[in-house]
Amino acid sequence: MPRLAIIGLGLIGGSLGLALKRAQVGSLEIIGCDAEWGVAGRARKLGAIDREARSAAAAVEDAALVVVATPILAVANVFKEIAPALAEGAVVTDTASTKRDVLRWADELLPESVSFVGGHPIAGKEQSGLDAAEASLFEGRPWAITPSVRASEQAVGAVENLVAAVGARPVPIDAEEHDSYLAGVSHLPLLAATALFSLVSTSRAWPDLAALAGPGFRDTTRLASTSPDLSHDICLTNRENLLHWLDRFVEELRRLRGMLDDEARQAELVKTFASVQAARDAFLRELPARPGPQTEVERMSAGERMLSFMVGEYVVRRTKEIEEVLKQREAGDQPDPRRRPEGR
Amino acid sequence: MPRLAIIGLGLIGGSLGLALKRAQVGSLEIIGCDAEWGVAGRARKLGAIDREARSAAAAVEDAALVVVATPILAVANVFKEIAPALAEGAVVTDTASTKRDVLRWADELLPESVSFVGGHPIAGKEQSGLDAAEASLFEGRPWAITPSVRASEQAVGAVENLVAAVGARPVPIDAEEHDSYLAGVSHLPLLAATALFSLVSTSRAWPDLAALAGPGFRDTTRLASTSPDLSHDICLTNRENLLHWLDRFVEELRRLRGMLDDEARQAELVKTFASVQAARDAFLRELPARPGPQTEVERMSAGERMLSFMVGEYVVRRTKEIEEVLKQREAGDQPDPRRRPEGR
Repeated sequence: MPRLAIIGLGLIGGSLGLALKRAQVGSLEIIGCDAEWGVAGRARKLGAIDREARSAAAAVEDAALVVVATPILAVANVFKEIAPALAEGAVVTDTASTKRDVLRWADELLPESVSFVGGHPIAGKEQSGLDAAEASLFEGRPWAITPSVRASEQAVGAVENLVAAVGARPVPIDAEEHDSYLAGVSHLPLLAATALFSLVSTSRAWPDLAALAGPGFRDTTRLASTSPDLSHDICLTNRENLLHWLDRFVEELRRLRGMLDDEARQAELVKTFASVQAARDAFLRELPARPGPQTEVERMSAGERMLSFMVGEYVVRRTKEIEEVLKQREAGDQPDPRRRPEGR
Repeated sequence: MPRLAIIGLGLIGGSLGLALKRAQVGSLEIIGCDAEWGVAGRARKLGAIDREARSAAAAVEDAALVVVATPILAVANVFKEIAPALAEGAVVTDTASTKRDVLRWADELLPESVSFVGGHPIAGKEQSGLDAAEASLFEGRPWAITPSVRASEQAVGAVENLVAAVGARPVPIDAEEHDSYLAGVSHLPLLAATALFSLVSTSRAWPDLAALAGPGFRDTTRLASTSPDLSHDICLTNRENLLHWLDRFVEELRRLRGMLDDEARQAELVKTFASVQAARDAFLRELPARPGPQTEVERMSAGERMLSFMVGEYVVRRTKEIEEVLKQREAGDQPDPRRRPEGR
């Protein structure tokens, strides 16, 4: 049976497993592992994975598709650990929020016999961890795809089909561009939300302020609830882009401040509010509807395409293995490939 | 029948009418009007009001409770218009997002025979206008109450009961404090969301950025969809407080920037993210559950208390009117008070 391995079973890894199970991708076995003790067992009970592996290296054995869904700074170590265990022709992807460093680590640490196709599902919620996982997390959401230079076309197709199978929208993009753009639409909002919540919640009047905080405050500061490790890893791996956007944000705030402070510039202020509202309305209209436009049938067929790729790779690899073993037999060695355990 | 008048039938005025109808406050007649042609008729068809009035002055005639739910800068004009038509002993409240100027206008423009109790429901949504109105808009939300110095205790009680009747949580507060606090938890977030959306959406790469924007960007910038008139009125009537918070926000962003830019300060950065996340988690835990903790029965009894106050005021006023007319009759004048039309 074709195997998919998920390394890291938090919100993203867990939701991916649940979404694949819901998409009912034919005869696919999902193996999972997590650095935290007990998490993989819970994921199996929740139905996010079929089988637990004791280590990342054990999980990727014979897997046609490997998804690394750990914190960003853990990705390099996972690459080191799985490199010797990866099957030839396997496709490796990840879910990290920044891509330049991950691509570099993949280039340095993964064997040339595998294809690395970076990935970043742009989905999230206030809670993190496996307990917050849900099958619908990726529906209608963008999922950036950043292939390494030596990834095969088929490998890119397999990851795009994986993304489509869970209801997300694949967005192919260069890794450097990804990091620069995400700094604007995701990492700057994270810092802005953090600064806003930090400022207001450390005010002496905070209990009174909190009593008057409504849904607007809650929404604007939602990203301040991002896991501190994730926030920090993002800052560390996307520092230059983030500093650039942060400086421009402060400039923009100063521009608004200038209008606010000058009675003669009231018309300009109204015009700014009006044009921003119009731009955001247009943005919302153009957003793909959520739940995703995909029907169950479309999602299944993406799953089937992914599977047929995995089966194809599996057959190629299996053929190679058989040839290898046959050669060894010719040389008088064992074992007989036809007696290998079921499922390998 | 006791009358309540709603001047301005947008998101707030319309939702208030719907919520009062849902709370089934006994024999209460809701009269509504709106400056925009056709809106009051639609509000009647939606069941938000019982009867349309052609003008604000006509709407408040004989109303025991008057709610001014217009844009902030329109409030002064409404006060001027209704002042001569207000019944003696009537209670006037409003729903404006800033309170200092409204209190001043009430003091200058409303007759001494009425009680003004300012109000501000801290509820909202991405859409505005009557079509976005919903009965549940205020459930579990804070609703600031800022009485004028000469408002009677009963008048404050009537407004608090109105607020409780629609499922909101009355928060009594001084008007100056209200404006200073709201600048922090509402108006600064509005400017931050506007600056963020303005910056990102005017970038040359905006189409690519938009394709990668996820729920975090959408939530953080939600307030940028606030009606431009509301945003502008808030800026104009709360300028000093907003400038103060804006300066502190820029300082906080610079503080984060300093940590981000300095490799030696990574631990400090993680600590900041961790403490902000913890503070926000605590804030969310302490938030009153929504839908509000109030049961239908509690909400009804608040409505009944409001009504009994309104009936009380009505009886007092009616008695005065009768005395007046009796005096005139003694002097040989007409008409006979017992023949006045039903419902006055």
